[in-house]
Amino acid sequence: MSVTPVPPLDRLGAARVVLARKKKLGLTWDKIAEALGHPVEWSTSALLGQQTLTREQAETAGSLLDLDPDVVDALTLPPVRGAAAVDLTDPLVYRLSEMVQVYGTTISELVREEFGDGIVSAIDFELDLQRVPDPKGDRAVITLNGKFLPYRVW
Amino acid sequence: MSVTPVPPLDRLGAARVVLARKKKLGLTWDKIAEALGHPVEWSTSALLGQQTLTREQAETAGSLLDLDPDVVDALTLPPVRGAAAVDLTDPLVYRLSEMVQVYGTTISELVREEFGDGIVSAIDFELDLQRVPDPKGDRAVITLNGKFLPYRVW
Amino acid sequence: MSVTPVPPLDRLGAARVVLARKKKLGLTWDKIAEALGHPVEWSTSALLGQQTLTREQAETAGSLLDLDPDVVDALTLPPVRGAAAVDLTDPLVYRLSEMVQVYGTTISELVREEFGDGIVSAIDFELDLQRVPDPKGDRAVITLNGKFLPYRVW
Amino acid sequence: MSVTPVPPLDRLGAARVVLARKKKLGLTWDKIAEALGHPVEWSTSALLGQQTLTREQAETAGSLLDLDPDVVDALTLPPVRGAAAVDLTDPLVYRLSEMVQVYGTTISELVREEFGDGIVSAIDFELDLQRVPDPKGDRAVITLNGKFLPYRVW
Amino acid sequence: MSVTPVPPLDRLGAARVVLARKKKLGLTWDKIAEALGHPVEWSTSALLGQQTLTREQAETAGSLLDLDPDVVDALTLPPVRGAAAVDLTDPLVYRLSEMVQVYGTTISELVREEFGDGIVSAIDFELDLQRVPDPKGDRAVITLNGKFLPYRVW
Amino acid sequence: MSVTPVPPLDRLGAARVVLARKKKLGLTWDKIAEALGHPVEWSTSALLGQQTLTREQAETAGSLLDLDPDVVDALTLPPVRGAAAVDLTDPLVYRLSEMVQVYGTTISELVREEFGDGIVSAIDFELDLQRVPDPKGDRAVITLNGKFLPYRVW
Amino acid sequence: MSVTPVPPLDRLGAARVVLARKKKLGLTWDKIAEALGHPVEWSTSALLGQQTLTREQAETAGSLLDLDPDVVDALTLPPVRGAAAVDLTDPLVYRLSEMVQVYGTTISELVREEFGDGIVSAIDFELDLQRVPDPKGDRAVITLNGKFLPYRVW
Amino acid sequence: MSVTPVPPLDRLGAARVVLARKKKLGLTWDKIAEALGHPVEWSTSALLGQQTLTREQAETAGSLLDLDPDVVDALTLPPVRGAAAVDLTDPLVYRLSEMVQVYGTTISELVREEFGDGIVSAIDFELDLQRVPDPKGDRAVITLNGKFLPYRVW
Amino acid sequence: MSVTPVPPLDRLGAARVVLARKKKLGLTWDKIAEALGHPVEWSTSALLGQQTLTREQAETAGSLLDLDPDVVDALTLPPVRGAAAVDLTDPLVYRLSEMVQVYGTTISELVREEFGDGIVSAIDFELDLQRVPDPKGDRAVITLNGKFLPYRVW
Amino acid sequence: MSVTPVPPLDRLGAARVVLARKKKLGLTWDKIAEALGHPVEWSTSALLGQQTLTREQAETAGSLLDLDPDVVDALTLPPVRGAAAVDLTDPLVYRLSEMVQVYGTTISELVREEFGDGIVSAIDFELDLQRVPDPKGDRAVITLNGKFLPYRVW
Repeated sequence: MSVTPVPPLDRLGAARVVLARKKKLGLTWDKIAEALGHPVEWSTSALLGQQTLTREQAETAGSLLDLDPDVVDALTLPPVRGAAAVDLTDPLVYRLSEMVQVYGTTISELVREEFGDGIVSAIDFELDLQRVPDPKGDRAVITLNGKFLPYRVW
Repeated sequence: MSVTPVPPLDRLGAARVVLARKKKLGLTWDKIAEALGHPVEWSTSALLGQQTLTREQAETAGSLLDLDPDVVDALTLPPVRGAAAVDLTDPLVYRLSEMVQVYGTTISELVREEFGDGIVSAIDFELDLQRVPDPKGDRAVITLNGKFLPYRVW
Repeated sequence: MSVTPVPPLDRLGAARVVLARKKKLGLTWDKIAEALGHPVEWSTSALLGQQTLTREQAETAGSLLDLDPDVVDALTLPPVRGAAAVDLTDPLVYRLSEMVQVYGTTISELVREEFGDGIVSAIDFELDLQRVPDPKGDRAVITLNGKFLPYRVW
Repeated sequence: MSVTPVPPLDRLGAARVVLARKKKLGLTWDKIAEALGHPVEWSTSALLGQQTLTREQAETAGSLLDLDPDVVDALTLPPVRGAAAVDLTDPLVYRLSEMVQVYGTTISELVREEFGDGIVSAIDFELDLQRVPDPKGDRAVITLNGKFLPYRVW
Repeated sequence: MSVTPVPPLDRLGAARVVLARKKKLGLTWDKIAEALGHPVEWSTSALLGQQTLTREQAETAGSLLDLDPDVVDALTLPPVRGAAAVDLTDPLVYRLSEMVQVYGTTISELVREEFGDGIVSAIDFELDLQRVPDPKGDRAVITLNGKFLPYRVW
Repeated sequence: MSVTPVPPLDRLGAARVVLARKKKLGLTWDKIAEALGHPVEWSTSALLGQQTLTREQAETAGSLLDLDPDVVDALTLPPVRGAAAVDLTDPLVYRLSEMVQVYGTTISELVREEFGDGIVSAIDFELDLQRVPDPKGDRAVITLNGKFLPYRVW
Repeated sequence: MSVTPVPPLDRLGAARVVLARKKKLGLTWDKIAEALGHPVEWSTSALLGQQTLTREQAETAGSLLDLDPDVVDALTLPPVRGAAAVDLTDPLVYRLSEMVQVYGTTISELVREEFGDGIVSAIDFELDLQRVPDPKGDRAVITLNGKFLPYRVW
Repeated sequence: MSVTPVPPLDRLGAARVVLARKKKLGLTWDKIAEALGHPVEWSTSALLGQQTLTREQAETAGSLLDLDPDVVDALTLPPVRGAAAVDLTDPLVYRLSEMVQVYGTTISELVREEFGDGIVSAIDFELDLQRVPDPKGDRAVITLNGKFLPYRVW
Repeated sequence: MSVTPVPPLDRLGAARVVLARKKKLGLTWDKIAEALGHPVEWSTSALLGQQTLTREQAETAGSLLDLDPDVVDALTLPPVRGAAAVDLTDPLVYRLSEMVQVYGTTISELVREEFGDGIVSAIDFELDLQRVPDPKGDRAVITLNGKFLPYRVW
Repeated sequence: MSVTPVPPLDRLGAARVVLARKKKLGLTWDKIAEALGHPVEWSTSALLGQQTLTREQAETAGSLLDLDPDVVDALTLPPVRGAAAVDLTDPLVYRLSEMVQVYGTTISELVREEFGDGIVSAIDFELDLQRVPDPKGDRAVITLNGKFLPYRVW
């Protein structure tokens, strides 16, 4: 009886291997980002599976993290950006969703007043995360930078 | 037969009246914010029902927007910050949720590496929204500024 | 044409009237609890609709809060303790649910080890809430006190 | 054909191994907690996967429970605190959720009256569980001790 | 402008009026059942809206409970037996559902062994509820009596 | 590379093995119950995974059903009583849920009138199932026997 | 202040009025179908709101049922065929859904074998319901008659 | 270390093997039904897992389809008739559900008028599927034949 | 007692009035579109509530459809584009969703191969609907025309 | 002990192998479509699992993509067109669903006005996708071409 071929490792499986290797080797996301030549936010999301990596980028990551060829292959698969990409009930992630829940209509109102009828792109988009020292407790400042896209009136 | 008392207008009903009055009077959120003495993001979310307003603030808004006393009363009710506060399927709001979906694990990873085990507060939190001119299309820059809270180890 | 009788005010509608009257009259929950002769936690949950009130208790509340007879009647209806009693997506309530999510298996393990196979009653149950001063920020100490009930082996 | 690397054991898998070893060796949570140098509630939740363990703590647990190195590695992974951490339909856990359902608005009202507009932290939080003897049946007293966090007004 | 006719009172609205009248008049379900000439379990479910009432039965109930003709009409409408008939999150009802959750496979196994492949009818069905005194606390004994229906093999 | 330890067989997996062995050996639940020394309803639910078994009971079952030691070990794990214990969409189980749907409010009303404000325990609970001959088709009589627990008024 | 115009009665509201009038006048569906000149199954579904009625048909129904002009207008609105048209948890309707659940794959297999790759139309469709006498209990024979539509291969 | 016994193949796994063998051998459902001595609709649903098969029937199917003994064993397991039996979102199956959605209330009304208060059994039930030639496109005629069961009035 | 102001008519309520007036006046969408000076697809979606209308456009529609001033006001409210805008279970709309279900991955693959990593905009988007005569039955050709937006790599 | 036969590779597993082989070999969908003799949209959906492939077509694909015989077998299985075929939360697919959400009622209205009461077939259906150059950014033009099917009036 022939052996049924097993479907190859997927992007999320590759991400778990990356996390394990990164820990084993004591690497930081900054270090990995430097190798990839992109900001740390983009680089992290790419290795976690949410951005497209070229073969060269995958191989760069493979060298740095000492990954098997199959994992490097998996890093070149299309990104996983749907609900499987995240656990929305994780306390840290939940609080981000809660910010959308509490301030979503405020953002809608202010965008409509400032720009008109449209949306803020999640595609033509950049993420930035900074630590801002504060004597009462340091703050995480997350910047969501998206192009305004007006509804086409035809 | 006595008339059963009708429960009073709630915060979300008050918000709808505020929006109608604001439109009728041609006011802007900036103008309303100026009267309240707070940034436009806080002031908008307060009048939409997501922040606590003091009686003085409610009356200031009442004067500016020419609101009935019952609406002013309703503005002093506790905020509505649950799922009823927003329509998560609205296209603009959805894209904010999608940002959390796509970048939630990236933010988690970077917060963990930078700050340790904890969350970014949605309570000790400030929202800022700016329009940034760009020749390829202006951008909306949304800043989520929350205090880092470490998990207590006891 | 005869007028179809309108079903009477329900417990949750009565609770909204109570909250409005309490605010208008500047009463505190402690004050209301004192009149009812029960701790503030029980008294508050009773007026919000989650405990059975006797007619005497309903009338005591009616006098103190200056309620219409129909509202007093509604206070004697059976309690509303299902999902309609609460908005689980409200940020404060959500954090209580998150405590159950994060520590639910821990509580299960420790109850099983200490008491054996059974549950902690939510019926033979008392709630207590205290403010505990703390130089780093005061704390809310919520005590859930329930009788252990072993699974019957028959 | 090269063998695709299997993603490593995760935190919840590690927890199942811990429970099996604990049973086999006849250990108690108190004993394990003593080795870790933390209260039994924190220690239990840590080994069940809801707290961060340092490598030293993981190795201490590994020695005590005679765990394979891969399980010790898995114990140092980030905590799992989302919905996968618990079965909310388990009867014991359900009753905790029901307490939130029945008393959630009461706690909200009393916190608002006592502290003002804010939440009780599930992060800066301690859990305590005591058995209290009672002639009518011993009681489980669960204490949720969280820092009050006021909503920032900016 | 003609007045749009309002759809008539429905069965669940009628049930709420019945409950209010029953309380006002101090009647018991036993007393009502006696007038209807059926056991208290059937009679209660009929007035709560889950059984078909003949016009004669509806009028008997109308006389006893002093109901308006429109309410009597509504009592003759088809029963409401879907999910709207009950709040499954009510603590008492939830425990009944939990019994099904915990013992559903046991009942399936025993029915299959005793009767063969089939179901226990919820249509050719009788409900009985008894209070059984017990020194450790009285018990509610709920009897579900349904005809076994074998799967037809054709 | 070391082999990652596989988490042990769980209670539901053990139940599937029990069912297969019982069929292979032509045993009945009555026979199994006799060996365990408990009524057939309790014994069946115990082997299906919903009751705690002592090591002695697990070994008794193991001898009777000729189970491997790992299955016997799995039988001593904590019970599985959450939603995973049952398929609520199975036609036989569904009809039990439908009985709760149709008669849940009736049971609530009658319990409240007979006992006062409280619930019928699903913990201090016994299940009984009898076949009752009937010329029109035999009937299954399921008895749910639970202790009444009054809501504590504190 | 001008009075905000109330949106007109919708199809489902019209259906409730039809049911009330039909009962009051003691009409049968057969009688109504005869007036409309269509089989009883089509006519019933049309008056319940799931088919398009011409103005002439609506007026015929209006005469027979003595309906107000606003109800006749509402009968000419587009049909309501979505989930709001039915309560899927009603016991009778549920059993129809269960037939689909239990026999859906069987029907798929047999259609595929007999007709090839395609579906049975729910649009080019006729419904028929007959009572078939049977000494063991009369039977309802429901015939679903739909055109087979092959998947287009382009 | 002993090898944990793997739970045996289940009914749905057996069905997938049956489908693969049937295809490989070029058999039709009619042919299989002939061997089982039942109509094709019953026989197909039995081999897909929704009916009880005797050992003799399972062995007959095993001979015809050249099945391994373990698959024959699995065919004698209890049927799987819950939601796992079908994919309700498959286009062909969905249209059957849509027929229930669109015509469910019509069937309810006509059954109530013709038979009285009750349901059409999905247990004492037969399925028939015929191809009816039609110049505009052949039709699938699905007959649902169920015994009427009146609600017991006790 | 002052009268609590009722929140104004919303966009969806306005749409229902538009549909009623359009029917009463025997207008077509083409005619309405001509008055608005936009294609019929845009104009229809605008009056159904999914596009922004200027005051001039709202008044043009108001004149043509003889709308009350309050309805004209409501037409200038922000669009409703969330889930409330549509009944996804309506058979016609469901088939559109099914097209996305069946062909969604095909469209993803082809867009990725042709354009690279990105999405097809639902904002910079035009809808067109044509009737194409066909001897086997006329066809509806729906064109979704959206700008490709590449994921920003930063 | 005999080895339980493993159910064969399914259509979605086959699709994952196809994608991996296509990438490895550097093939395009156009090239694959050419070999199959169908347009690229049909061919892609067929290999992703949403169309029926004949054995000849499967073998043609097998030769071109160098697939194992088991994968070729799997390509001849019935299509998978249910919810498992797609991730509706993927950003590209979500925007297609959003188009249905925003424009679903518009399409319904225009189809009803142009064709009458019926639906646009998702079965007698063709998909076309074109890249249209545009100086402001190229556009994806997706054409949904379905036969109009009128509701049968019988």
